[in-house]
Amino acid sequence: MKEFVLGGARSGKSAFAQRRALESGLQVIYFATAEVGDAEMAERIARHRAERPAEWGLVEEPLDLAGALRRYAAPTHCLLVDCLTLWLCNLLAAGEDRLHAETTALLTTLADLPGQVLLVSNEVGQGIVPDNPLARQFRDEAGRLHQAVASRCDRVIFVVAGLPLTLKDHVA
Amino acid sequence: MKEFVLGGARSGKSAFAQRRALESGLQVIYFATAEVGDAEMAERIARHRAERPAEWGLVEEPLDLAGALRRYAAPTHCLLVDCLTLWLCNLLAAGEDRLHAETTALLTTLADLPGQVLLVSNEVGQGIVPDNPLARQFRDEAGRLHQAVASRCDRVIFVVAGLPLTLKDHVA
Amino acid sequence: MKEFVLGGARSGKSAFAQRRALESGLQVIYFATAEVGDAEMAERIARHRAERPAEWGLVEEPLDLAGALRRYAAPTHCLLVDCLTLWLCNLLAAGEDRLHAETTALLTTLADLPGQVLLVSNEVGQGIVPDNPLARQFRDEAGRLHQAVASRCDRVIFVVAGLPLTLKDHVA
Repeated sequence: MKEFVLGGARSGKSAFAQRRALESGLQVIYFATAEVGDAEMAERIARHRAERPAEWGLVEEPLDLAGALRRYAAPTHCLLVDCLTLWLCNLLAAGEDRLHAETTALLTTLADLPGQVLLVSNEVGQGIVPDNPLARQFRDEAGRLHQAVASRCDRVIFVVAGLPLTLKDHVA
Repeated sequence: MKEFVLGGARSGKSAFAQRRALESGLQVIYFATAEVGDAEMAERIARHRAERPAEWGLVEEPLDLAGALRRYAAPTHCLLVDCLTLWLCNLLAAGEDRLHAETTALLTTLADLPGQVLLVSNEVGQGIVPDNPLARQFRDEAGRLHQAVASRCDRVIFVVAGLPLTLKDHVA
Repeated sequence: MKEFVLGGARSGKSAFAQRRALESGLQVIYFATAEVGDAEMAERIARHRAERPAEWGLVEEPLDLAGALRRYAAPTHCLLVDCLTLWLCNLLAAGEDRLHAETTALLTTLADLPGQVLLVSNEVGQGIVPDNPLARQFRDEAGRLHQAVASRCDRVIFVVAGLPLTLKDHVA
């Protein structure tokens, strides 16, 4: 089962996905995509880590997400990726070719993974058009990725103020 | 039947509205409100055009949208406007008087149009308050217009990650 | 009964909350959190005031919201707070200690208030990550506050284009 959890900043999307992972009853492996860029990011990463159960596996992978997921996927595993937006940031910094290759690899890989997969991402496209061309490109890439991921998942949840809104449910 | 399709950047709102237009079985006339301002916009317009069926009519109207809709409306036509946000941008550039006159004209006209009408627009009010006063004004005008259009439509759909969320449905 | 009304800029959230207040049949007391900072804000405040019924009570409280709510709460009153986001702005300007103390006080107080309470706030976390560190902090604090308030309310409504979307309803 593949589930996509989308939400704004501090919407409670990570906590929601973590509850889902616990409910799965499977061995949870957490895929962190963030790179420690500065003190603010380091602090966010440390806070997120402290909130997660100690028995969860941890894989840090900023770029080759498809490869990392394939290595750890198993019928007894729940793979939790948090989050796609930071991964996309890393890919944009790595260049358009890498971006295209890795997003294509993720979308292809998703269909074949055994076990449960939870993907978390940030909604960034509902504010004013950014002045910055790179921010506009990021926003466009994020929107395209979200559509593609949502179409390949069985369930899509939009989290607002900690509350889930079901956008798609082909499981029930 | 009037339907309003709202969504963030690259949310899949245009594709959703285009599917609705195809499902109508009517002759589709596409109203483009974008003006070719720079290379980035020209590229977006060209990409959108390539994604549309060749047999659709095309009307380019950056300002007098109400007049254009009245000219083409017919019981056998499905008028698809994409999008109101760019039209609002053009009106803001044309001045407050024009903005007020044209938005009033659109809202008045909507009630009387025969056939099907699909209006697409961009949600821009769910990010941080912009520093730029013009961006704040645009955000306010867009929010007001969306409320007014939504209240005059039979159906309002909010698109997130390519998935429709029904906000209003007086058709079913 | 506690109800939380969340929405983007000019989404119609205030008008929605005001309709709810009228429907309560109780004596409405309106809590304004805005401070008249500049001409633009003064104009917004005046416009909001003109839209409210003259018989409503008005309490202006930029910081000690919990105290103000406790003073006016009664089984025959409907307390309408518009909005939490401006209150949060004032608290950020007053410093982290005050911010922490006042938000904790509000969350503790909420559980015990008699009568009806309506809280309005602005969704600000669904746009691109802001460049400005203070804007990022504000966005994070707003998100955290919204989650905490939503978890303590009986009903949570997300307003888009003037239309309510129910995120939580423990009343019906």
